[in-house]
Amino acid sequence: VNSFGRIFRVTIFGESHGKGIGVVVDGCPPGISLTAYDFTKDLSRRKSGALGTTPRSEDDAPEILSGVYNDITTGAPIMIQFQNRNTVSKDYSQFKDTPRPGHADYTADVKFGGFNDPRGGGHFSGRVTLALVAAGVIAKKVITPIVVLAEIIELAGKKYSFEESISDAVKSGDSIGGIVECRCAGIPVGCGEPFFDSVESLISHIVFSIPAVKGIEFGNGFSAAKLRGSGNNDLIADSKGTTTTNNCGGINGGITNGNDIVFRTAFKPTPSISVVQKTFNFKKNVLDSLSIEGRHDACLVLRTPPVIESAASIVLADLMMINNLINRR
Amino acid sequence: VNSFGRIFRVTIFGESHGKGIGVVVDGCPPGISLTAYDFTKDLSRRKSGALGTTPRSEDDAPEILSGVYNDITTGAPIMIQFQNRNTVSKDYSQFKDTPRPGHADYTADVKFGGFNDPRGGGHFSGRVTLALVAAGVIAKKVITPIVVLAEIIELAGKKYSFEESISDAVKSGDSIGGIVECRCAGIPVGCGEPFFDSVESLISHIVFSIPAVKGIEFGNGFSAAKLRGSGNNDLIADSKGTTTTNNCGGINGGITNGNDIVFRTAFKPTPSISVVQKTFNFKKNVLDSLSIEGRHDACLVLRTPPVIESAASIVLADLMMINNLINRR
Amino acid sequence: VNSFGRIFRVTIFGESHGKGIGVVVDGCPPGISLTAYDFTKDLSRRKSGALGTTPRSEDDAPEILSGVYNDITTGAPIMIQFQNRNTVSKDYSQFKDTPRPGHADYTADVKFGGFNDPRGGGHFSGRVTLALVAAGVIAKKVITPIVVLAEIIELAGKKYSFEESISDAVKSGDSIGGIVECRCAGIPVGCGEPFFDSVESLISHIVFSIPAVKGIEFGNGFSAAKLRGSGNNDLIADSKGTTTTNNCGGINGGITNGNDIVFRTAFKPTPSISVVQKTFNFKKNVLDSLSIEGRHDACLVLRTPPVIESAASIVLADLMMINNLINRR
Amino acid sequence: VNSFGRIFRVTIFGESHGKGIGVVVDGCPPGISLTAYDFTKDLSRRKSGALGTTPRSEDDAPEILSGVYNDITTGAPIMIQFQNRNTVSKDYSQFKDTPRPGHADYTADVKFGGFNDPRGGGHFSGRVTLALVAAGVIAKKVITPIVVLAEIIELAGKKYSFEESISDAVKSGDSIGGIVECRCAGIPVGCGEPFFDSVESLISHIVFSIPAVKGIEFGNGFSAAKLRGSGNNDLIADSKGTTTTNNCGGINGGITNGNDIVFRTAFKPTPSISVVQKTFNFKKNVLDSLSIEGRHDACLVLRTPPVIESAASIVLADLMMINNLINRR
Repeated sequence: VNSFGRIFRVTIFGESHGKGIGVVVDGCPPGISLTAYDFTKDLSRRKSGALGTTPRSEDDAPEILSGVYNDITTGAPIMIQFQNRNTVSKDYSQFKDTPRPGHADYTADVKFGGFNDPRGGGHFSGRVTLALVAAGVIAKKVITPIVVLAEIIELAGKKYSFEESISDAVKSGDSIGGIVECRCAGIPVGCGEPFFDSVESLISHIVFSIPAVKGIEFGNGFSAAKLRGSGNNDLIADSKGTTTTNNCGGINGGITNGNDIVFRTAFKPTPSISVVQKTFNFKKNVLDSLSIEGRHDACLVLRTPPVIESAASIVLADLMMINNLINRR
Repeated sequence: VNSFGRIFRVTIFGESHGKGIGVVVDGCPPGISLTAYDFTKDLSRRKSGALGTTPRSEDDAPEILSGVYNDITTGAPIMIQFQNRNTVSKDYSQFKDTPRPGHADYTADVKFGGFNDPRGGGHFSGRVTLALVAAGVIAKKVITPIVVLAEIIELAGKKYSFEESISDAVKSGDSIGGIVECRCAGIPVGCGEPFFDSVESLISHIVFSIPAVKGIEFGNGFSAAKLRGSGNNDLIADSKGTTTTNNCGGINGGITNGNDIVFRTAFKPTPSISVVQKTFNFKKNVLDSLSIEGRHDACLVLRTPPVIESAASIVLADLMMINNLINRR
Repeated sequence: VNSFGRIFRVTIFGESHGKGIGVVVDGCPPGISLTAYDFTKDLSRRKSGALGTTPRSEDDAPEILSGVYNDITTGAPIMIQFQNRNTVSKDYSQFKDTPRPGHADYTADVKFGGFNDPRGGGHFSGRVTLALVAAGVIAKKVITPIVVLAEIIELAGKKYSFEESISDAVKSGDSIGGIVECRCAGIPVGCGEPFFDSVESLISHIVFSIPAVKGIEFGNGFSAAKLRGSGNNDLIADSKGTTTTNNCGGINGGITNGNDIVFRTAFKPTPSISVVQKTFNFKKNVLDSLSIEGRHDACLVLRTPPVIESAASIVLADLMMINNLINRR
Repeated sequence: VNSFGRIFRVTIFGESHGKGIGVVVDGCPPGISLTAYDFTKDLSRRKSGALGTTPRSEDDAPEILSGVYNDITTGAPIMIQFQNRNTVSKDYSQFKDTPRPGHADYTADVKFGGFNDPRGGGHFSGRVTLALVAAGVIAKKVITPIVVLAEIIELAGKKYSFEESISDAVKSGDSIGGIVECRCAGIPVGCGEPFFDSVESLISHIVFSIPAVKGIEFGNGFSAAKLRGSGNNDLIADSKGTTTTNNCGGINGGITNGNDIVFRTAFKPTPSISVVQKTFNFKKNVLDSLSIEGRHDACLVLRTPPVIESAASIVLADLMMINNLINRR
């Protein structure tokens, strides 16, 4: 399923080494200014170039094909696409024969009967998050003045001195993971739907669609499991519902309580490494060795903060529209 | 939203102290034997009675109202309901005036303009998970021979000697949280849908609808963020896709790889405690003290393993039907 | 699929001769008064008893199980159920062996591998529309002051003197069909969603779920196909969008234009007749004769106006909530 | 809402005079051959050029951007787009001030607060059906060997001698409507879902999204309302469910019975005519006269058969996948 949302609805498409990547945003309110320039900041933050990111460089210029007239959204579906330019042709049959450990090579091959596009991970590539960021730029405009901000709080198990970890990993041809914390401020009370569409349910749903995510926690999350109720409950301090602590991450009973939404996402290390690994050779039917050449992120986490922000913003745009907190016209 | 699933679709309803709780299971394949006895085991595991669970005792006898004929599913929607019998009438306006910290009292009140049912948490009560377990019993039959098993692996931060923690919490009128691990064995390769409906997305979505859940991780989860790729990747060892480790928790690229699905869920401590707490009095517009009487679980985690199993089984039933791995007739 | 709607969402269940029939209404705004008495009028209009309707008499007493507290909707899902009391036990294997022409006996049997409930048509029975009417009663309250009114405009091809047609059909053990016209007044401009969820799309979707419906047309419908644009276009006469004619039935481009929504629904004659019919005997594998005893409506159309009204009201409630024209709190 | 379908899911976007039109087809099975040439036949049938169709000529060359690798579908979402080339720039503010009778000008303007794209009807234009036809080409491949064929059976109320009607309308600057009949052959028994997703519900839903459709009927449709049960019931003649007549249009209880699905769609005459019409001038707040210049179809029905076929094929592809009759891999 490549669609998400009930009213503010996002549909993504594209492959890493195909012609391009794109997104249809349906249900966006009319009357919002939108030009290609609006995407520059978040797309830049997602771009490669820094130490630990892939040497593949794409200009990622958004083309707005529909849903915008005179630089203002019309209420019709907005389609935004990005051409892939810097793709490298090579023989990808290697990953069909000897699927990369930790990758979708094997699972996608079985699921799609061998017809999946193997080039650069195809539709399973992290490059598809480009579409998510594009949708997120629109979502952020919809939910203004809510501010959604994500930052890396841990890399390779270290809370500070990130750079050293990255440099080490790059040198050794290995990769590292990390944790991103996201904070949403200015949230009204009452967002989130009973039971299945709790705020946590929706945010976790979209966040786990981002490649390499393996865990999520809200507020103090896994730490809460070690506490007593008397130490974990957030005391309500005023008539606006402000709490003295925010252990619940701004959500009670699945519904926002007006305090900041806070959640943390765990990214595993990029599975693509140049270190030689064992894997099964399905062609020869023997255990084999695999050395992954190509261009990869030694630390993909560096590029994820705008992706996480986009995921959260898309959920909030949808919930606020469902809850009549944003007018559709 | 009280519905979940695309083909195997669950709709829940009911309140803690209303007339009852129930669930409609739509899209269940015909031809599956189903009687009230099938629910006994999992409903019993969810029941109260043990130290640390609520003294409220309900017989939880399921009534199958539709979708079953001659003890066999027909393909029509299955409705199962449970009457509430052991409800205690009292004045709940207390929780409207002084909402319980950590509860949905305040958020539900704002969201629903003061019209929500305040008795025992209403629709936001953990009692609604009874409906989830009923649906899970059916889902487990659908996905046979897959085995889904959840167990508590940590309570109040301790991996063993749980009883002491529970006893301490009960004595002090406080509550404790914990962590539940769930393992699904016998999964075929290829379940899960591209991007938004990854296995992790769907399981986390439904798991976060369970009251008190604040975190989830798949495979080694948050620990993966501390590892290098060379240490985290699971090497493929044979032609069935068996991996030598299972750090990914049975899921690559959002798609099952045939190894066990493994995930852990963090439950916060029950917010209802008899320890006196500060909270805001919205009626008097001053900070106030609250002492929660009533009957509560000092350790609700004890009752959650069948709930978690049900959540996972519902997702797997849906995914396997979407993937043509279960025939609808 | 037994659910319909995006925000105001209806899920039905039940069988003709099972324990009962019911509906879950999810997404209903809180703060609406609702008691069992509110259902009396429309349930009575749907009841049998008149000439041409089935002698089966049910009291159709609604039980509101959830979502209502102190006779006011809470925002949680509302479940309403009806027990079946006046069911007649008999051998239904006849309809498995020799499926009734014009009925779902054969198609349901094949679809559900022989496991469908054959008693009185099971889940395919017109009795399930009881659930739709219950949901419609709530929907009508939600969309107040919009008025939705349906009436029979033709029976057995006759525009007047209905009674004679009915009496003739009953005497000869045959059945008749008819046409129902529905008019919705007080509609705001701008309901309906672009492309797939046009007002006509949604109304026709739910109307065709009603057993025996074979056609629908909006405004002048099939007659429009015979006209020229100059004779069919509705001229806009004032600043409120009032048109001098209403050939379009209140809908342009799938969106309401503020004039009355008008549509007509064609019902085929009840397929159950006591006239002897030929059908195939699947047990003996020969052509056979079938005489349907049982209790049936010679003219089911008589009971359908509240069903059609409910269908339209459910769509309008959903569209107005999507369009922010009804506040959720 | 610009998406339709549960498993085989179509999302459309684009405007008449914007940069282009397109569609995302999600859930298409992998392994189906697909090239730009496959679209030629149906796109040509939809094209203008004949007497009674618009002089606007577009080459309608499909660009397949994603979801296809080596000319074979991969299982990932397929995006197909068409550039608009032959757009004529002019002042469209006329239709904001004096909305065209019978058009979406007024309703879209109110719904979207004046921000809708007014050029050539924007997203409400019949040109958007180009996306539907593109999706239909894929759907037809999915449901092979089912054959879906639509043809015009009436124009301007005449069953033969269409040409004269068209010629007359063109000469007088007026327009005509008509009726299209669609027949689907080779359908397996058992497609269609209980209650809300009856075959009629789904086909009517998507058909009414096509601009200018005002009525639909299945089998003998509105004529059935005039018949008696004994004359309308289709007698089952053999063990395959073949019926001696097909008054029900291949559908009983919302489920296919194996006979041809037959339905008729009524198109109103194109609202755009050069005949002078009265309409309200919202700028001057007076009744005014409007003469529509531009390029229009005097008889848009001529171009609709492939659109209707596509709509039906999209529904059938989805239902057959839901029903496990098409394997996803």
